[in-house]
This record gives sequence, structure tokens and C-alpha cells, in this order.
Amino acid sequence: MRQPVPLAHASRLLNHGPTVLVASAYQGQRDVMAAAWNMPLDFDPPKVAVVIDKSTFSRGLIEASGSFVLSVPSAAQVDLVTGVGHTTGREVDKFSRFDIQTEPASQVEAPLVLGCLAWLECRIYPEPHNQSRYDLFLAEVVAAWADDAVFQNGHWQDLPPEQRALHHLGGGHYLTTSGLLAGRMPT
Amino acid sequence: MRQPVPLAHASRLLNHGPTVLVASAYQGQRDVMAAAWNMPLDFDPPKVAVVIDKSTFSRGLIEASGSFVLSVPSAAQVDLVTGVGHTTGREVDKFSRFDIQTEPASQVEAPLVLGCLAWLECRIYPEPHNQSRYDLFLAEVVAAWADDAVFQNGHWQDLPPEQRALHHLGGGHYLTTSGLLAGRMPT
Repeated sequence: MRQPVPLAHASRLLNHGPTVLVASAYQGQRDVMAAAWNMPLDFDPPKVAVVIDKSTFSRGLIEASGSFVLSVPSAAQVDLVTGVGHTTGREVDKFSRFDIQTEPASQVEAPLVLGCLAWLECRIYPEPHNQSRYDLFLAEVVAAWADDAVFQNGHWQDLPPEQRALHHLGGGHYLTTSGLLAGRMPT
Repeated sequence: MRQPVPLAHASRLLNHGPTVLVASAYQGQRDVMAAAWNMPLDFDPPKVAVVIDKSTFSRGLIEASGSFVLSVPSAAQVDLVTGVGHTTGREVDKFSRFDIQTEPASQVEAPLVLGCLAWLECRIYPEPHNQSRYDLFLAEVVAAWADDAVFQNGHWQDLPPEQRALHHLGGGHYLTTSGLLAGRMPT
């Protein structure tokens, strides 16, 4: 079940480098795209960085609304992620094309994609130089959520294969995360 | 064996979101730190983004030299990654403390960490606002390398557990990536 994640733990939802879905909405239009190029940027307040290409339909909605939602998809959603990553919202309504169910976010206009592992509602910092020169968007995480079956008390759980995050290699090929390891702390 | 990676393929070395080592050097001083917060920023010329906290010894070396090297460590190096991530170059020479072997880079002063899977030599773009406000460094990849046993012809190979990348969850705990999946392309 979807539960709020304390903002101080929000960076952990992206710390391992999963590919995310970026949803956007503005005045009745909406879009969703895939973004492997994302990372946490700070802990408190939590911030994220994500690359949104100028060619995407999402770009205009994000700039107009000043916000977006990152949803962390699972391996079970690999076809959906590949689908939205290889079509454009200029030509198709990806939500109906890929049968994407959503729920309203709490703080921003863009929706949460159902079936994902975690969600981050984000409000962009106005940084026009980064946006125009690097397609780079920096944003504050204003609300965060996770499925409590996969992320609990600030920690990702040991997950069955279909509930693991996707890590895009390119061209619709992904690795999933597995194999929890603990490094030895220096004494 | 370490082989050059064409710059057009350099983004694929980071596309799946691995934790990296960031090495830096300036006028005979050097440091190495761990950074989960990194991502590709562009394909051609290849660019990367990485967060380098103000408190790190690396930060001064990177700002002074204008460059750094990202090395992508393997699961076999989990103790090394955790060690350099939980000590500071202000107090110890991490290279000797963790017995880190290096080779010279081709374009920049910082070294390549031996035993890693891949390497990106990077020259930073002067973006003082991003650096001071967000601890965010944007850089061009000026040379890239990979062990040809793990990355060949632009593609990560199917790897045994000890040669898989590390994805940091926090606190010295990591997931590794495995389980290649292909998404269905939209028709």
C-alpha cells in the first residue's frame, strides 16, 4: 500500500540509480516519459536532478507547470517503461496507449503512475541557464511516497524479481537490482 | 584488459546508475571519494553531472585542477568503496590506507583506480553558481575506458556477481545489478 515517506528519507528512493518515469501536467494536458538520467541532489530539503530533452512533449508541460512527479517503476513494468521511452506525447496519449493508471499527487498537478515502487513529487527551481544549456532540471522534492511492501522505515526491502527497480542500459535493455551487499566500515 | 571506449558510447558506462569513485589530483595532492549521486548529462560530446560536497577534500582539488576521473567499481571492491566513502582525505591518504592501485589518466591529472570496470576522464565546465549553490559539478568526458571483459562494443556483458556494478542504498549497503531484461518496443 502506498504510504508517505518522510522527506528526510526521500533521497534513498533514487540513491541506487533506478530509471524513473517523469510525469507532467499543465492545464489539462499531460505526458509521461522515461528518464535514466536522474539523481538525488541533496538530503534536506531533498532535491533531485533530471535531464529532460528539449524535443520531448513533457518539457513544455514541466516548464509551464514548474513541477513533475518521478515514479520508480518495477521490473514488472518493463514494457510500459520501454513504451513511453520510445513514443512521443506529441503524437500519442501515452496514458491510454499503454493503459497507464494514475492517482492524483498531493502537491503538484502531475499524476503518480500506479504500480510503481515509489514516487517523488517535485517542484522545479527556476534555473533557466541549466535548462536551456544542459536540459537539466533541478527540483525540490515536496512529497514522497513508497509502496510499504518494497520500502519500509527508510529502507528498500529484499524484493522478488518482478518488484525490483529497472536500470536502463540503453535501447530498451535493462538490468534489475539484486544481491544486497554490505561493505566493511573502516575502523 | 583496459581498452578505450569511443566517446559516443561513454554515457552507457553510467546509464544504469552505478555508484562511482571520484578521483582528483592537484599539484602533488590527490584524493578519492565515493559518489552515488552521478548521472550522464549528454551523449555527444558526452557530459556527466556529479555531486561533490563542500566538506570533502576532493572538492578543493577538483576546483583547483578543473578535472576529475570517475571509476566504476565492481562488487569485489565493496570494502574499498565503503572505506573511501567513510573516511576523509583531510585526515588520511586513502590510496595507501585502502591499498588503492592507480594508473595515470590520459587527459587529466587525476588517476584511474585499478580493478574497476570502467573509467571516465572529465574536465569540468565552469559553473560557479551550480557548484556553490548545489555542490553540483557538470563536466565533459574527454576520454573513456572499460575493461573489455565487462564492456565490449558499446555494451555491458553478462557479468559474474563479483564483476557487477554497485548501487549504493546508503550506510555502506549496496545492491548489485544483474538479470538482463528487454522491454517490448512499441509497434
